[in-house]
Amino acid sequence: MIKSKLSLLPVLMVLFSLAYSQEALFGGQQIVSPQIQDDQSVTFRVFAPNADTIQVTGDFLPTVKVQTPYGEMDAPGKANLTKDSNGVWEYRTAPLGPELYKYTFIIDGITAVDHNNPFIMRDVASLFNIFIIDGAFADLYKVNDIPHGTVGKYWYDSPGLGMDRRLTVYTPPGYETSNMEYPVLYLLHGAGGDEEAWTDLGRAPQILDNLIAQGKAQPMIVVMPNGNVYQDAAPGHGKDGYYKPQFMAPGTMNGTYEENFMDVVHFVEGSFRVKADKAHRAVAGLSMGGFHSMHISRYFPNTFDYVGLFSAAIIPREGATAKVYQDIDGTLQAQMDNGLRLYWVGVGKSDFLYQANVEFRKKLDTMGMKYTYRESEGGHTWVNWRIYLSEFLPQLFR
Amino acid sequence: MIKSKLSLLPVLMVLFSLAYSQEALFGGQQIVSPQIQDDQSVTFRVFAPNADTIQVTGDFLPTVKVQTPYGEMDAPGKANLTKDSNGVWEYRTAPLGPELYKYTFIIDGITAVDHNNPFIMRDVASLFNIFIIDGAFADLYKVNDIPHGTVGKYWYDSPGLGMDRRLTVYTPPGYETSNMEYPVLYLLHGAGGDEEAWTDLGRAPQILDNLIAQGKAQPMIVVMPNGNVYQDAAPGHGKDGYYKPQFMAPGTMNGTYEENFMDVVHFVEGSFRVKADKAHRAVAGLSMGGFHSMHISRYFPNTFDYVGLFSAAIIPREGATAKVYQDIDGTLQAQMDNGLRLYWVGVGKSDFLYQANVEFRKKLDTMGMKYTYRESEGGHTWVNWRIYLSEFLPQLFR
Repeated sequence: MIKSKLSLLPVLMVLFSLAYSQEALFGGQQIVSPQIQDDQSVTFRVFAPNADTIQVTGDFLPTVKVQTPYGEMDAPGKANLTKDSNGVWEYRTAPLGPELYKYTFIIDGITAVDHNNPFIMRDVASLFNIFIIDGAFADLYKVNDIPHGTVGKYWYDSPGLGMDRRLTVYTPPGYETSNMEYPVLYLLHGAGGDEEAWTDLGRAPQILDNLIAQGKAQPMIVVMPNGNVYQDAAPGHGKDGYYKPQFMAPGTMNGTYEENFMDVVHFVEGSFRVKADKAHRAVAGLSMGGFHSMHISRYFPNTFDYVGLFSAAIIPREGATAKVYQDIDGTLQAQMDNGLRLYWVGVGKSDFLYQANVEFRKKLDTMGMKYTYRESEGGHTWVNWRIYLSEFLPQLFR
Repeated sequence: MIKSKLSLLPVLMVLFSLAYSQEALFGGQQIVSPQIQDDQSVTFRVFAPNADTIQVTGDFLPTVKVQTPYGEMDAPGKANLTKDSNGVWEYRTAPLGPELYKYTFIIDGITAVDHNNPFIMRDVASLFNIFIIDGAFADLYKVNDIPHGTVGKYWYDSPGLGMDRRLTVYTPPGYETSNMEYPVLYLLHGAGGDEEAWTDLGRAPQILDNLIAQGKAQPMIVVMPNGNVYQDAAPGHGKDGYYKPQFMAPGTMNGTYEENFMDVVHFVEGSFRVKADKAHRAVAGLSMGGFHSMHISRYFPNTFDYVGLFSAAIIPREGATAKVYQDIDGTLQAQMDNGLRLYWVGVGKSDFLYQANVEFRKKLDTMGMKYTYRESEGGHTWVNWRIYLSEFLPQLFR
C-alpha cells in the first residue's frame, strides 16, 4: 500500500517503541484471541511458556456454587487452558448463543485481562474483556452500518448538589442537522456505576441506533447522569483524579439525588431541542437506578409519563428520613391519579431482589396502579438490563 | 451512611457477583497499586503467591539498548518486583517528576495490566495502565475543578470516502448555553491512532479546559477526526466490530484523506456555531497527522491561518501519485503567498524523524517561509505531543 521511503525501518522503529513486548516481537507468535469459530464456539489463547496454570472465567461458562461467609452463592465458572509445545495455551468453548460476553484469564492465580483483545470494559473497579456472538437480540448490541446518534459527555451545573457534574447524552441520528424537538429518556445506573455505565456495559447507543433504524423506537434523546451524589464524574474523569472505585458510593441512597434531580432536567431542557412536557419525559433505571426512578417519578408526580424499573432495588428502608422517602403511598397515589402511560417493572427469576419486587407489585396491585410486568430468566446482570432496555424503548413516546 | 434494610447481605451478594475474584475476596488483600508516595515515588503491588517473576515496565524507567534485526534500539526499561511472605509483590520507584506515566506488568513473561488500577489506555492494540504525578505542566493533564468543555462522538457523512464516519469534537465550556461563534482547530492523530487518540492518550480535553480556564488559550472547538480512510470509526466503534488494530492502516497515506478533508470541515461548519473563515481555522497533527496537516494546509492553500506539525512524518515519498502529492513546492508557495499567521514545527532531538524535519525546514528556509521551530528533548512520544499541544494552543486565534 505504502510505496514510499517512509517504509520499513522508521515504521518498524515506531512500532517497536509503541508495542514493544516480548510476546509480540520476540515470541514470534501472532496470537489471535478470542477467535470466534464458524460454529460460534470461541477459542482463547495466551502465549505463556513460563506459566503453570491458566484458566478463563466468563459468563458463558456454567456458574458454580461456592461457599462464602454469606452462604452458598453462584460464582462464574472457570475452564482450564492447555499448553502446546510452543508455549501457547488454548481453550475452546462449546458453541455459544448470541450475546455480549465478558471474560478474564486467571494466570497462575492472578486475574488478568487478555492482552490480545484490546476491548475492555470496567465494572466498578474490575476490568474484563468482551466479545459479541452475532444473531438475534445480540445484533442490537453491534455497531451496524446504519445512521448513528451522537454520544457526548457534558457538564451541568447542579445548584442542589453544589457542583458541576458530568453526564452522558445520546442524541439521535440527524439531531445536528434537523430542527426537530425530541422526547427525553433519563436512564439511571446502579450501585457502582456512573455516567459511563449505560453507554459501555449497557450498549445503550447501539441499542438505540438499531431500534431507531428499524423503526421500532422513536428518535429520542437519552440522558445518562451520574447518580453518586458525592462524585462530579466517573472515576478518572472528575476532580478526584484516579482512584479505585467502590461498589457503594457514599450518599447514593440518602435522598439528595432524587430531590435534586430537576437540576439535570433543567440543564437538558435548556440545552437541547426537547419536547419539555410530561408526555415526552421518561425515567428508567437498573437496580439502584430503579430505586431512584421509582422515587423520582412519584416525588415529582406530574413529570414523567413513562417509568421503567429494571431489577429495581426497591426494599423497605428503615431510617430513611429524607423528605423524598416520606409518604410513599400518598405520592404514588398522586402519580397514579395524575395519569401516566407506562409503568414498567422487570426482574429476573433468580435475582436477589426478586422477592422485593413481588412485595412492591403487591403494593401497586393494592392501590390499583396499572403496570407492565416482565419476568425474565437469570438474575441481577447486564445481560438482563440490555434486554429490558431493548424491550422498554419501543414502548416509549407512542 | 445507608441506614436501611438494603444493607449488608444483598449488597455483598451483588458485590460478590460483580467483583468475584480470588485476590479481592479470598486473598484477604486490599491491594493498592499504584500508590503515589509523599516523595512522588510510586509503589506497584501485585498479589500473586504462585508467580515466579514479576516485572514492571514503564516510561518512568531508564530505557535500555536492545539488539534487534533492525539494529540497536531503545526499549522501555524493566524493574523486578520482590515478593513478601504474604505473596504480595512490590516495587518502589525513585521519586518521579511531573508527568502522565504509563506501565504494565510482566508476570512470568506475560504482559499484563495492573488489575488494581482500572485506568487503562489503548495505543494501537496495546493496553497499559496510567497514573499522573502532579505539578508543573502535568497539572494541565488533570481534571481540575474548573469549567469543562463537552466531548462528543459524532458521525458525519463523507461523500468523498463514501461512508458515514465517526469523529470527536470538543466544544468549550459554555458552548451549550452561549450564542457565541467559535474558531476551530482540526487536530489529527498518527499512524495506529484514530478519533480516540487525542482525547485519551493526548489529554486534549483536559489541556484545553485548563488553558482556557487560565486565560491562556482562546475558547475554541477542537475536531479530532479519524485519519484511517478505510475505517468508519475506531476499532470496536465501527461496523467492523471488534478486531485487533494494526499500526499502519491501509490507505492512510495514499492521498484520499487529505483530498477529502473538506467533508469534515463542511460537517463541522454546518453543525456547530463556528467562525467559518481562514482566520479562525487551524490544522495540526502528530507524526502521520503532521504529514496530513502539511499536505491538507497547502492543498487547500487559502483555508487555514494556523498550522502545527508535531514530530511530522514529512519524508520525501517515491511513487506517491495522488493529486495532493503533486507540486508540493508550488502549493507551499501559494500557501505562503496567501498569508498565514502561524506555521509551527516541533520535533524531539532523538526522534527518528528528526533529520526529515531538518530537511523540511531547509525547504521552508529556501522559499522564505516563516515558521516557529520548537526542538525538545526526547523522541517520538505522547510525552512530547502533549507538551507541543500545550504550547501550540495559546498561539491560536490571537
